[in-house]
Amino acid sequence: MYPYAEQKDQIQVRLRRIEGQLRGVQRMLDEDKYCVDILTQLSSVVAATQKVGIMMLESHINGCVTQAIKSAESSDDSQVAIQELVEVVERFVRR
Amino acid sequence: MYPYAEQKDQIQVRLRRIEGQLRGVQRMLDEDKYCVDILTQLSSVVAATQKVGIMMLESHINGCVTQAIKSAESSDDSQVAIQELVEVVERFVRR
Amino acid sequence: MYPYAEQKDQIQVRLRRIEGQLRGVQRMLDEDKYCVDILTQLSSVVAATQKVGIMMLESHINGCVTQAIKSAESSDDSQVAIQELVEVVERFVRR
Amino acid sequence: MYPYAEQKDQIQVRLRRIEGQLRGVQRMLDEDKYCVDILTQLSSVVAATQKVGIMMLESHINGCVTQAIKSAESSDDSQVAIQELVEVVERFVRR
Repeated sequence: MYPYAEQKDQIQVRLRRIEGQLRGVQRMLDEDKYCVDILTQLSSVVAATQKVGIMMLESHINGCVTQAIKSAESSDDSQVAIQELVEVVERFVRR
Repeated sequence: MYPYAEQKDQIQVRLRRIEGQLRGVQRMLDEDKYCVDILTQLSSVVAATQKVGIMMLESHINGCVTQAIKSAESSDDSQVAIQELVEVVERFVRR
Repeated sequence: MYPYAEQKDQIQVRLRRIEGQLRGVQRMLDEDKYCVDILTQLSSVVAATQKVGIMMLESHINGCVTQAIKSAESSDDSQVAIQELVEVVERFVRR
Repeated sequence: MYPYAEQKDQIQVRLRRIEGQLRGVQRMLDEDKYCVDILTQLSSVVAATQKVGIMMLESHINGCVTQAIKSAESSDDSQVAIQELVEVVERFVRR
């Protein structure tokens, strides 16, 4: 079981809300709404998705990364988990 | 009619694809997938949404902003459209 | 003369301040300061540089882009300036 | 001594290069260079600063965070270091 288990319900609620926002954007396009209003909605989808990413990241560090470091017999063992973490952070920072 | 009209189908296809990705993320949580894989999917949702934003921005500048500047009798008239554009760009750059 | 001329002094002050922050970061490294404090300074350099970018962008749209659209005889003429604008925005949004 | 010690020279070289880029931007303004070229330089300063941030983050996780987790007697002890890490990542992701 992964460490986000505790927050799963909370994250699912947020994901469904983002999905709803995205369907709202599709409706706005269908109804020929003003582009700036659509752009505002899109930037809100980006921010909400990043927020879920931060939540997942926190539980990943608290769970998997902490576990990997604790159970590592040499620093090489935890190195894999840390490298993977840094790469996923980099993907968020530099899209 | 807004200037994204021409690209509407193309943008809707992209939005539906992002919606599908988001539903995929919800499924991954339900199936207890590895957090890093979920994080990778989330960063791909962010990138795809930003791409749609850039497309909307381009058609907004080509359409509404260009129109506002062309039809402006004084520089004050186009100023409103330009200010609005800068603000929406800022919202994307600094989330 | 470019359209940022009016804001030049203001922008130069900001750039010198960012330069000072960067030298501060170098000093912090030399003095073995805590990494999180250095990271906080670095994220402030990023935010301040993006702010100058937004200011330049605004004067660019107000000046060069507006000029290109006004003096364009066909929509192809203004297209070049708009395409260039969208690309530079994209570079800021997706680093 | 902090964990970036090993990479210090490498990071200092990068910081001096960014400082040089920033002085270059100031010169471009003085010489009335084209705004889009200045904007391109600014987005390169942002990207280079983020890269240094990622390097610092990696050594921070490898060093301080790993140490905090290893020496923690309860999960509350490592919690502080993890919370601090998540906050500094958030500051980079959502500027």
